Parts: sequence; C-alpha cells; structure tokens
Amino acid sequence: MQIDAEKWMTVALGEAREAFARGEVPVGAVLVDGDGREIARAGNRTREMKDATAHAEILALRAAELREGDFRLDHIGPVTCVVTIEPCLMCLGALSLARISRIVFGIRDEKFGGLFGKFNLIERSPFSEWEITEGVLADECHELLKKFFENLRNGTAPG
Amino acid sequence: MQIDAEKWMTVALGEAREAFARGEVPVGAVLVDGDGREIARAGNRTREMKDATAHAEILALRAAELREGDFRLDHIGPVTCVVTIEPCLMCLGALSLARISRIVFGIRDEKFGGLFGKFNLIERSPFSEWEITEGVLADECHELLKKFFENLRNGTAPG
Repeated sequence: MQIDAEKWMTVALGEAREAFARGEVPVGAVLVDGDGREIARAGNRTREMKDATAHAEILALRAAELREGDFRLDHIGPVTCVVTIEPCLMCLGALSLARISRIVFGIRDEKFGGLFGKFNLIERSPFSEWEITEGVLADECHELLKKFFENLRNGTAPG
Repeated sequence: MQIDAEKWMTVALGEAREAFARGEVPVGAVLVDGDGREIARAGNRTREMKDATAHAEILALRAAELREGDFRLDHIGPVTCVVTIEPCLMCLGALSLARISRIVFGIRDEKFGGLFGKFNLIERSPFSEWEITEGVLADECHELLKKFFENLRNGTAPG
C-alpha cells in the first residue's frame, strides 16, 4: 500500500516549522506504518539537546523503537520515513539499521545528503533497493529552509 | 600530538568487554582530546536501550557533547575516536557532524563498515582528509567479536 505522501509531508512540515520556531535548522520527519498510521514524529533538536545526532529522523526513530520495544522496525511491516529534506549519511545509516527502506523526502541536500550528491549511495546496496520518492511539497520544504538561513545571515534567527 | 593508540584501545576494549557481558555486540569506543585526555567512553547498548542508534561511538559522542555543552567538538582541539571496529555509516556521519576527523580502530567491518568495504567512503571528502589508523590491538578486537558470534550461534549468548 502506498501512503498518502502529501498528507504525511504536511505533518513533517509541521514538525519542521516547530523546529524553526525553536531556532533549529527546520527539518521535520514522521514514521508511518504500512497501514498508513503514524508511529512517531519529530523535529530537529540539535541545538536544544546539544547533540549532533538529534536530527529529526533519529529522534523519530528512537521514539518509534521505544514504543515498539525493538531496535528494528521491520516486524511491524514496511515503515516509511517521510522527511522534509534528503537524509544525511548518519540518518541514512540509522534508518538502515532500524530496517527502514522506504523514504519520502521534500528536497535534496547537495551538501549533506547521503543518497545523492557527492556520496551518491543511491547506487549502492542496500540503498539501490530502497523505495525512494522525492520532491513532495518541495517548494514548502525549500522556502522554510531558505527563510531560516536568510534569518541566520541577517542575525534575526530566533532562539 | 599523537595519542597513545594502544593505551586507548585497551580502554575501548574494556568497554567492549562490558558490552559483551551485557549480551550486546561487543564494541567499545573512547574519545580522546589533543592533550591525550579522555573526554568520554561507551560500549554498545542497542539491545538494552532498544535503540538501533545506541552504538558505542554515538553514546560516547552524546556524553562528550553534553559534557562540553556543544554539539560540535572541534572547539576543544583535535578529538580522536578510538573504537574497536571500523565505524558504520551512521557513526561515520555522526562523527563528521560533531567535527571529529581522527579515528583509530581495531579491525575492519566488511559488512557494515563505512570507510572501507562496499561503501568505500575513505576516497570521498571529507573522509579522504581524515587521519585514520587501523589495526590497533586487532587480534583482541577480533577475538572478542568472534566469541560473541560463536556464542550466539551456539545459543549460549548472555543476557
């Protein structure tokens, strides 16, 4: 079954907007099971938690793993990670360890993205077998990040 | 300044042995600053924490970041991550985000290692510029892992 990508990207964008309001790089993620039910959602909290690993995907994964009582999530069927921007190398590795192999994202991350760009892991196993959908609500995802980095440059970032 | 690789690998091995006793895949890590002082040490706790991200390197990073009050560690000078086995993709990404670029490890991980093997990120920036030392106390690191997986196959794993 295909999940409703736009519906869940709207949820992820809500998390990203809350991250923005906290002064964090505005990225949001939500994990959805094969029946289209939410497992966990999170926004980036690297600043607040003083933790470089506190990316939206990692926080959503940790919450989901605690809820499910397992550090792998494949036993509940195909889980999709819906995230506003292409996952970085760390998040890609973590998703793989948790046995998630479906990703929906908004925009590519030329600098830190693990799938495309310089690392190009999309061509390597296991990532070459993953179901990847990109470009969902891309304009909204892009606008939010653009606004954040503009504010940062202008010294008007919140938090 | 070069840190005493064998001394710190012995510390990392201690963490790996404690992980073994807890029934975890026996991997240990320690973060050492440029003056050869310990910042944080940890062993793998994925089973105990029900968290696929609870690798030794990640737990050591989180502890170090909390202690230093920053999600990047480069402000305290060149930090080295000493770990019993080659870091996986997730840990490599996390170390990079925390601005650590010196790694000492015991043995390569053909299956999940991020630097060598199928991903071969050692050839890509920023990893191509990292200071990497491998093979430190490799026999001990290997023996411990071998014993763990033998016990697992024989159904005699602890925990």
